[in-house]
Amino acid sequence: MMQFNLLEQIRQKNPLIHSITNIVVANYVANGLLALGASPIMADAEEEMADLAQFSAALSINIGTLDPFKVKAMLAAGQAANQAGIPVVLDPVGVGATQYRKDVIAELLKKVKFTAIRGNAGEIAQLAGVNWSAKGVDAGQGDGNIGEIAMLAAQRYQCIVAVSGEVDYISDGTQLTTIHNGTAMFPKITGSGCLLGAVLGAFLAVKPHSPFEAVVQACTAYAVAGELAAQHLAPTKYGQFYTALLDSLGELNDQQVAKFARVSIEKSA
Amino acid sequence: MMQFNLLEQIRQKNPLIHSITNIVVANYVANGLLALGASPIMADAEEEMADLAQFSAALSINIGTLDPFKVKAMLAAGQAANQAGIPVVLDPVGVGATQYRKDVIAELLKKVKFTAIRGNAGEIAQLAGVNWSAKGVDAGQGDGNIGEIAMLAAQRYQCIVAVSGEVDYISDGTQLTTIHNGTAMFPKITGSGCLLGAVLGAFLAVKPHSPFEAVVQACTAYAVAGELAAQHLAPTKYGQFYTALLDSLGELNDQQVAKFARVSIEKSA
Amino acid sequence: MMQFNLLEQIRQKNPLIHSITNIVVANYVANGLLALGASPIMADAEEEMADLAQFSAALSINIGTLDPFKVKAMLAAGQAANQAGIPVVLDPVGVGATQYRKDVIAELLKKVKFTAIRGNAGEIAQLAGVNWSAKGVDAGQGDGNIGEIAMLAAQRYQCIVAVSGEVDYISDGTQLTTIHNGTAMFPKITGSGCLLGAVLGAFLAVKPHSPFEAVVQACTAYAVAGELAAQHLAPTKYGQFYTALLDSLGELNDQQVAKFARVSIEKSA
Repeated sequence: MMQFNLLEQIRQKNPLIHSITNIVVANYVANGLLALGASPIMADAEEEMADLAQFSAALSINIGTLDPFKVKAMLAAGQAANQAGIPVVLDPVGVGATQYRKDVIAELLKKVKFTAIRGNAGEIAQLAGVNWSAKGVDAGQGDGNIGEIAMLAAQRYQCIVAVSGEVDYISDGTQLTTIHNGTAMFPKITGSGCLLGAVLGAFLAVKPHSPFEAVVQACTAYAVAGELAAQHLAPTKYGQFYTALLDSLGELNDQQVAKFARVSIEKSA
Repeated sequence: MMQFNLLEQIRQKNPLIHSITNIVVANYVANGLLALGASPIMADAEEEMADLAQFSAALSINIGTLDPFKVKAMLAAGQAANQAGIPVVLDPVGVGATQYRKDVIAELLKKVKFTAIRGNAGEIAQLAGVNWSAKGVDAGQGDGNIGEIAMLAAQRYQCIVAVSGEVDYISDGTQLTTIHNGTAMFPKITGSGCLLGAVLGAFLAVKPHSPFEAVVQACTAYAVAGELAAQHLAPTKYGQFYTALLDSLGELNDQQVAKFARVSIEKSA
Repeated sequence: MMQFNLLEQIRQKNPLIHSITNIVVANYVANGLLALGASPIMADAEEEMADLAQFSAALSINIGTLDPFKVKAMLAAGQAANQAGIPVVLDPVGVGATQYRKDVIAELLKKVKFTAIRGNAGEIAQLAGVNWSAKGVDAGQGDGNIGEIAMLAAQRYQCIVAVSGEVDYISDGTQLTTIHNGTAMFPKITGSGCLLGAVLGAFLAVKPHSPFEAVVQACTAYAVAGELAAQHLAPTKYGQFYTALLDSLGELNDQQVAKFARVSIEKSA
């Protein structure tokens, strides 16, 4: 049986999570990390990336709104984090949408060693080289089994891969776990996926040497938080859900995660 | 009698709306488009503008926070959208406030063909060349009849012009329609105008060949959504209104718009 | 006995506050200023800084997310504001965290005359040259009495210094006042400090020749607003607090501030 114990550690240690993210969700990511019990630092000037890696507990990189300066900062931050030995998460937002995003992701994956990659099915299929019809930054639909895509991507990049969606798929290339919690309201607010990328950083920060377990716990806790947030809301109350998810992250504890978790081990080590 | 039928089409087609907007409202615009049933993509790197025009259904450009890189992206995106034949909306935030904004807007209007321009009375008066005393990004007050200003601007730029305020004025240069819905809380939250600019994009995306009708429907639906959102709130509950407007956009349907619409045709074709 | 009368003046005059702030909190700062009764303009292109100083009533500079272009804009805006004779506020977010931030703050303090500086204890200790262990953008803890640190910094930079925390310390180098209002929820949402920096601008705009009094009133009003916002919320409802603080700023009046204020004059002139 699975153990859920990392939320409490996040609240005890308040790990500092450095996020390089987009202008759309920067506020929500910072508020979500605070609610969770972590401490966010949002900075994207190349000039200060090396300094920040000295005292951050994890780095989260999100390519939602790119520009050449931010890309330089991402590379510098990723390499400094690798040198410092802290976990690094990649969120390849809309990677299939433009050639520029493909090029940036290729360069990031070449020069930085990522601990975990989180995306929707369309984004991870793109990274795994599987045919998929994404739409802008939305998941879209396509060939193949999402679990296999997660495993393929994890093998290719030798890291943990989390595919977010109605069901979450998490793989380290050998193991595959699915999470059946969540809510249909997640994709109706902006930043719910981006925040999860940063949340992965917080969980990895307190369990850096068991990254698969950290990512499974992170995705489960987050999906349960969403489920509880949506529980008493009419299905079109997206504004209230946006607020309720922060409340829910603030209230959640490991016991609740364990109680509500619907997690299946599809392939074990 | 006017027909209201485009909200349902937005929900069926989920048009992808590319927004180049400012750092203040990017989050609210994305959440508002999602609540409405459209699919937002927020991107402002010149490098990816041409690619995005290939699969976006409309483009919305907002000059709220400018910089020279963003201006290049706006020009590239506008021209690519023109070539792709998709509707393009301009929101000339605070255009009268600085020489830089005047110059940028002049260049945009010269190099990009806009389907619609949305602004407050001060911004549209500036574009129409009418004397008006704006204050920063606020509407201000000045000479002349707002309806005439809307018509003048529409004639000058050969597009649909929507002037937002207590009463909305919409003109294509010949026709003039006024919308008397709305709430005094709109100007008390940031981004309520900017979000409307993107909402125009969503309505134009599903009715590109009747842009005047699309803009009238968009402004009516949005004003009704605001009215319903404010209905049960004390007049200083700006935080709650910010959230309630998203809820209201999520719940609204064409039947409600038709029921509450207070629209007058001032001049017909 | 202290007088509280500036909130009403802000609502009568709607002073235009120019904020150069970070991508994380730009939205919240604008909404907070609107709720308070001021009029925000958020702009950070060097090209338009001089123009904006001609009609702004105060300038607020926040270094939360820096880049070299924003730094140039900050310098241009600060110098233009100095020439125009309007109050200028500095929020040195995370100044101790990186060498880049230290360098930028040193340049700003050298080239711009600030009316007030607002920060947490770690940030102000760094400016005062006192040993302190900050953590990223969080306050941290360290040697020395916070009141003395506030006085030292105020003497060194010849301006009003406000140290935010459980107790707020405000000094002009001679006087020292403490404010005992507030809520433990402030540090659990992002931007609560950054918004206060802009709020200082609004209060200074209506009382530019008594900056110490303006800053004391601003910090008291803000702390009372937070206290009232948190009053009926469970302690982990961070999402609701984020919204409630805007509502509270919208509802607050000088009579309420006077009623709830817990202000002590530690050293008088």
